[in-house]
Amino acid sequence: MALLETSKPSQGSVLGSVNPDLASERQTASFSVETLTALLDGGAEQTRIRRAVVEAIESDPVFSREYQYFQTQNERYEAAVRKAVHLQKKMHEMGWTENGPEYKYIYRALSGDVAFLLHRIFMRSISVLGSDKQIAKLIPLATQHRLIGSYAQTELGHGTYLQGLETTAVFDTATQEFILNTPKVSAMKWWPGDMGRSATHTVVFAQLYIHGKCYGIHPFIVQIRSLQDHSLCPGRVIIAKTKPREIAKVRPDGTYVRQGSQKINYFTMTAVRISLISDEVLTPLMKACTIATRYSVVRRQSKLKPGKVTIAMPMSTLSLLHQLSSNREEEAKILDYQTQQEKLLPQLAAAYAFHFTNDYLQELFNKGYREIEKKNFDMLPELHALSSGFKAVITQHCTAGVEICLRACGGHGYSLLSGLPSLYTKILASCIYEGENTILLLQTARFLIKCFMAASAGQPVPPSATYLAAVKHRKCPAKNKLDFLSPDIYIEAYQHVAVRLTSSTAAKLQDLIQSGVKKHDAWNQCTVQLVQAAKAHCHYIAVKNFAETVEKLETKAGIQKIMKHLCDLFALHGIFSNSGAFLHDAYTSGAQMDMVTSSYLDLLAVIRKDAVPLVDAFDFTDQSLNSALGSYDGQVYQRLYEWAQKSPTNQMSPAYEKYLKPLLHNTLSKL
Amino acid sequence: MALLETSKPSQGSVLGSVNPDLASERQTASFSVETLTALLDGGAEQTRIRRAVVEAIESDPVFSREYQYFQTQNERYEAAVRKAVHLQKKMHEMGWTENGPEYKYIYRALSGDVAFLLHRIFMRSISVLGSDKQIAKLIPLATQHRLIGSYAQTELGHGTYLQGLETTAVFDTATQEFILNTPKVSAMKWWPGDMGRSATHTVVFAQLYIHGKCYGIHPFIVQIRSLQDHSLCPGRVIIAKTKPREIAKVRPDGTYVRQGSQKINYFTMTAVRISLISDEVLTPLMKACTIATRYSVVRRQSKLKPGKVTIAMPMSTLSLLHQLSSNREEEAKILDYQTQQEKLLPQLAAAYAFHFTNDYLQELFNKGYREIEKKNFDMLPELHALSSGFKAVITQHCTAGVEICLRACGGHGYSLLSGLPSLYTKILASCIYEGENTILLLQTARFLIKCFMAASAGQPVPPSATYLAAVKHRKCPAKNKLDFLSPDIYIEAYQHVAVRLTSSTAAKLQDLIQSGVKKHDAWNQCTVQLVQAAKAHCHYIAVKNFAETVEKLETKAGIQKIMKHLCDLFALHGIFSNSGAFLHDAYTSGAQMDMVTSSYLDLLAVIRKDAVPLVDAFDFTDQSLNSALGSYDGQVYQRLYEWAQKSPTNQMSPAYEKYLKPLLHNTLSKL
Repeated sequence: MALLETSKPSQGSVLGSVNPDLASERQTASFSVETLTALLDGGAEQTRIRRAVVEAIESDPVFSREYQYFQTQNERYEAAVRKAVHLQKKMHEMGWTENGPEYKYIYRALSGDVAFLLHRIFMRSISVLGSDKQIAKLIPLATQHRLIGSYAQTELGHGTYLQGLETTAVFDTATQEFILNTPKVSAMKWWPGDMGRSATHTVVFAQLYIHGKCYGIHPFIVQIRSLQDHSLCPGRVIIAKTKPREIAKVRPDGTYVRQGSQKINYFTMTAVRISLISDEVLTPLMKACTIATRYSVVRRQSKLKPGKVTIAMPMSTLSLLHQLSSNREEEAKILDYQTQQEKLLPQLAAAYAFHFTNDYLQELFNKGYREIEKKNFDMLPELHALSSGFKAVITQHCTAGVEICLRACGGHGYSLLSGLPSLYTKILASCIYEGENTILLLQTARFLIKCFMAASAGQPVPPSATYLAAVKHRKCPAKNKLDFLSPDIYIEAYQHVAVRLTSSTAAKLQDLIQSGVKKHDAWNQCTVQLVQAAKAHCHYIAVKNFAETVEKLETKAGIQKIMKHLCDLFALHGIFSNSGAFLHDAYTSGAQMDMVTSSYLDLLAVIRKDAVPLVDAFDFTDQSLNSALGSYDGQVYQRLYEWAQKSPTNQMSPAYEKYLKPLLHNTLSKL
Repeated sequence: MALLETSKPSQGSVLGSVNPDLASERQTASFSVETLTALLDGGAEQTRIRRAVVEAIESDPVFSREYQYFQTQNERYEAAVRKAVHLQKKMHEMGWTENGPEYKYIYRALSGDVAFLLHRIFMRSISVLGSDKQIAKLIPLATQHRLIGSYAQTELGHGTYLQGLETTAVFDTATQEFILNTPKVSAMKWWPGDMGRSATHTVVFAQLYIHGKCYGIHPFIVQIRSLQDHSLCPGRVIIAKTKPREIAKVRPDGTYVRQGSQKINYFTMTAVRISLISDEVLTPLMKACTIATRYSVVRRQSKLKPGKVTIAMPMSTLSLLHQLSSNREEEAKILDYQTQQEKLLPQLAAAYAFHFTNDYLQELFNKGYREIEKKNFDMLPELHALSSGFKAVITQHCTAGVEICLRACGGHGYSLLSGLPSLYTKILASCIYEGENTILLLQTARFLIKCFMAASAGQPVPPSATYLAAVKHRKCPAKNKLDFLSPDIYIEAYQHVAVRLTSSTAAKLQDLIQSGVKKHDAWNQCTVQLVQAAKAHCHYIAVKNFAETVEKLETKAGIQKIMKHLCDLFALHGIFSNSGAFLHDAYTSGAQMDMVTSSYLDLLAVIRKDAVPLVDAFDFTDQSLNSALGSYDGQVYQRLYEWAQKSPTNQMSPAYEKYLKPLLHNTLSKL
């Protein structure tokens, strides 16, 4: 970034006093922001607890993020460790415990800039898979952070496909040890957070070999650094220190004994996939919406009533050189442009839609957990299909949303100081970890195909898939654009598309197989369409759940009304931007699609009025947004100016003496 | 990034010896890679010159990019200056001149990591707008880099809408000076590259005031730093030093005299918009395709013939714990998965499509320039509409393409070492500068609406818009999926959609105005659809031009055949992924859309065979790709391993002594 003042701006800092352009947006809210915040938190009491946690953390200078955007990777790492360590003291001081109501708000309050994130996964793995002896030995140490754990699964050459892992663990009956080895470069453990620099212990996944026979992937507890001086333990010594037999149940003579319920582990990992949605995916999108929306009512550009010339002129400098300007008339807020509304408001609607989807999934998982406690595992396939599909759909949708918000802020959105690039970097990662999205969607698709086959054969299917049995060949009954504001109409449209995509792909799959194509080749030739079917399934459930949630909302405080608008927008935007799926078999006609478009564009203008209150309801503090564009007071330019001055790029660079001076003084030859 | 070796990999460096998985892809090329490279360069002689420039630059250690990914922003700046300064010597040594055939390859060879990029714009502005006296004084100094120029247009508060600029230039008849001033924080000049740290002079755009009357935006030459010690010149001193009267033609008494042809300036800026497409947009996409495609034939994951369990199993660790692995059978290259082909190959087709679009635009501009030399400005509106629309469409399409390539490489794509994140950061910027894309698309839309009205009234319209007169209400004549491999069929489909979107939006606009809505409000209410129309227009021209280019290609060496496949893929992918536009008025039926889908998916499998030769033809050196995933030898894992060791993050961090040790030794309380 570069800036120049030809003369010092007269204006002093106005930070804190709310920009009138932003203040006016708040005066016209059609609903109670505080009530909506409480709804999002799950109750006013939860809001109170969350704010208390945020206040305690943000008032502590050790957790400051002020210079974050100017830090090197090493400086960011150091800060993350400092915060992680200080957090232990803080929790003790505040009396927060891992099981207390405050705990879940700590991560959000820290905006994730904290180390040891895999420590809990390490502890959970030990608790779930370890022997009583291991638990007794390691968990107390880990709880006090006398050791720091990591989770070493991914290798340089293998990620999602764990069967392909190349690290081996050979049981040596003589020494009663497991010899872990990474025989090739591609077998090297790669990516696990904290392992490279912080962790003293890790859970290493390796192919177990006993007497030359491979027993597949098993986890091994490995100490990787000295607890005394943090020096890296040499390979073989590590192994000798562990007692993995107690996890693997391998008898001294090498007899292999299975243990543990595969299904419970399976459930645990599916739960992890859901748990990341809120903090890692929804929060970044909500922050991006807050930043971009507030900026879009502060930023003014051109006139809505410009006089033909402005629109007809090219966006070029020189062509404007001799044109008289007419700055008397005020420029329009960019959020008043339909195109800007069409960029931001669907992202806002998606943030709310997926927040409620997340509630739905959490509830389903709690139910599933209760069933499993009764040794009933019937819900697992459905839970797996939903967690896989929604992890992929929500991370992709929200990542695209953050990018749209960033681009909608132009050059300033592109600047680190907007906070948007770091949100994008964070959310993009969520598309990659915890299962690659395309593979996850194919998991969901396989579930759908199975359910469709079962349903067609009149067999029972899980609740979320029963609709697949109801193959209707009706047409969309909508008569005018207002009909498309009726949830029954659009929910049925989404359902119809999901059924059509699943059934047509199932048919293609069968045709290919009947025509002699091998099963796996046939599957591969259908995967592009299978992915579409899985997305349609999730989109249908998200729309249905949003509409049902709105139904249940209290009518007071205008909450239900505005949520209904957002639900309609979410549904119609999906139809508008994916119209081919709805038009394909003429379920929806072109004339009806015009009604959808019309209702959709009308909604943009309606929701635009409440855009700022709707992002205010997310209740992010300025510190958590850490954005020069998105602060509550809307003092965008003053903040950019003041923050830019903190940048090391605005200090004199050695480049002048080294390179520029000889060039400018024409003494280059002497170089 | 974090890595762990439980034992040192036995394998030594194999860099240089081509990975067999990549080598095998090259043995089956259906065409001559060298011939295609020459076609892309515009002739074998051009290829020779380009390679000579690349060789000269890459063999010079001063231009090395080796540690680029580990540099701080200040270090990158210093390197960019070092390279820019050294480039002057290099050009002198090599005998390269700004008008020589080598010049256009220098920037590509440097991958843009060089300072003073605005210096040429500065020089061009002086040459075009300066007085003879200014040109005589400044151009020689600038040519020898005795001064460094910048271009200060954008302000904190205004970008694309230049009329809104707030910097003022008040003519003082007493001192015969212009007093430049940025009266508010939002008026501060922001963004101009080099200005913040390197430049000594800049062209400042300001509202000219004479005797209290505003004459609009004018450029002023301002010296901002001392040529002696590079210290920042205090505001008013700067002004006194310049002689802007000679640009602005203001007589001593303050009489304002216009000069220069607005139209020529206008043409110049439109040309700039075109010129950025090749280096700033197409090159990054071609590099991303090269990296992702090569990686996708080296990376292996899971089996195509997996045995049901693998696909049915969740992508979770623990569920796989007790499953026997079967690693004897080799895993599949990820490019053999239809879903991976569907991610990468359309981006590859787009890279070729837009390369030829760029040729078409360049040719059109040369023609336009010849006309202008004859004082014929008739082509300007069309050139402006095309340059605006294609700048927006190509930057958006290619930015999305780079992101898809990045995500298609999973975690390794997300790593800086892949080269993909820096390509994404670079190309994303192109969506923002030289005119915000939505505004540019609306410029094109306005041109289309005018042409449509004119055409409907039987008046003549520019060549690229004549098709708007040919409003057909026919249906798509395709009978089977092979018909969709006929350019006539898909070109007409694209044309039909462009006409429909333009005409329907024109009708909506008229209806609104006739119903009493004010013109500017009516326009605003149509902008979402106007943007769709502009995109459809550009997409139609791109498809048509690609097909016409293929027609003209020599049939030998298999070039025409493979280019025809890519043209078909580009066209069908556009229909497949935007099917609603084609289904809307039933021009294309659902059954025909199934044919499109079928032909599209068939093409993926066909082009996949030539995927590696097709990216090899882009002819990027390993140094220019600077990617651990994309190098010619395909030694992905070894390179990641070796490069990671250069990272400062793999050195011991002070965080241990400061924070970790007290924590692990449980002496925190003493902190």
